Amino acid sequence: MDIKIRRAVKEDCPRLLELIKELALYEKAPQEVTVTLEHFIESGFGEKPVWWAFAATSPQPSPEGEGEEIHGFALYYIRYSTWKGQRMYLEDIIVTEKMRGKGLGKLLLDRLIIEAKEKKLSGIVWQVLEWNEPAINFYKKYNASFDAEWVNCTIGV
Amino acid sequence: MDIKIRRAVKEDCPRLLELIKELALYEKAPQEVTVTLEHFIESGFGEKPVWWAFAATSPQPSPEGEGEEIHGFALYYIRYSTWKGQRMYLEDIIVTEKMRGKGLGKLLLDRLIIEAKEKKLSGIVWQVLEWNEPAINFYKKYNASFDAEWVNCTIGV
Repeated sequence: MDIKIRRAVKEDCPRLLELIKELALYEKAPQEVTVTLEHFIESGFGEKPVWWAFAATSPQPSPEGEGEEIHGFALYYIRYSTWKGQRMYLEDIIVTEKMRGKGLGKLLLDRLIIEAKEKKLSGIVWQVLEWNEPAINFYKKYNASFDAEWVNCTIGV
Repeated sequence: MDIKIRRAVKEDCPRLLELIKELALYEKAPQEVTVTLEHFIESGFGEKPVWWAFAATSPQPSPEGEGEEIHGFALYYIRYSTWKGQRMYLEDIIVTEKMRGKGLGKLLLDRLIIEAKEKKLSGIVWQVLEWNEPAINFYKKYNASFDAEWVNCTIGV
């Protein structure tokens, strides 16, 4: 299959949000997605963007001629670590269920590594659910370090 | 004691980095602090700031007249959650050892809550080491939610 990795654009946002909801369902927390499409677009493509993303696409002929389908994406923001400086925080890497196991995740993560180097970020960090074995096995291929000693804390304001 | 909470300024950076190293030692990872003072200053007070902080100070008479001492600080950046939108990520909240138990942490966290509201962020998130009981007990007073199901992952680039 002819998969292309390209930078995500504003018009992709409805599809990206659809995939975000698909992942939240897989992560057993669909009710946790409360962000609106409007806020999502504004945060990525407004005056002060705070996230960036790459999409994995394939050509998809449509009645109007050539189209494409988005099968997955990777979305990051820049975090500031007082230990390591600026790092890439991989917020989401998602491949739609029917397209898993075809190497799309690898294409996306490889693209992020290039981006992190270009932006002189000191590394890539993310989180994985402790029971998500397929994801953990995928990350092991990149020699990722895993640290389960930290607990996530949240308060609303 | 006369404690004041104020926004951190560029000149505070050497002292903040000193406290960051003190905390890393307490967290049993002093070797992990590899950020330079120059990068730290640039990231907080350069063209595109990516972190903001508040300092807890008290007056400290010096030969030159009035001075002040920094006993602790809280440093945050804005993270983007594809579930919740923009949130405050509390990267560090530090009170120097001799000043613990005097309410400085509460003053700092209360100030952050005001800041998060003013910036219309949807909440405050952070991480705590699972064995850091004094910190966990402090956060419980704020009705924080704790989630130990996520594992931190890192790769260098």
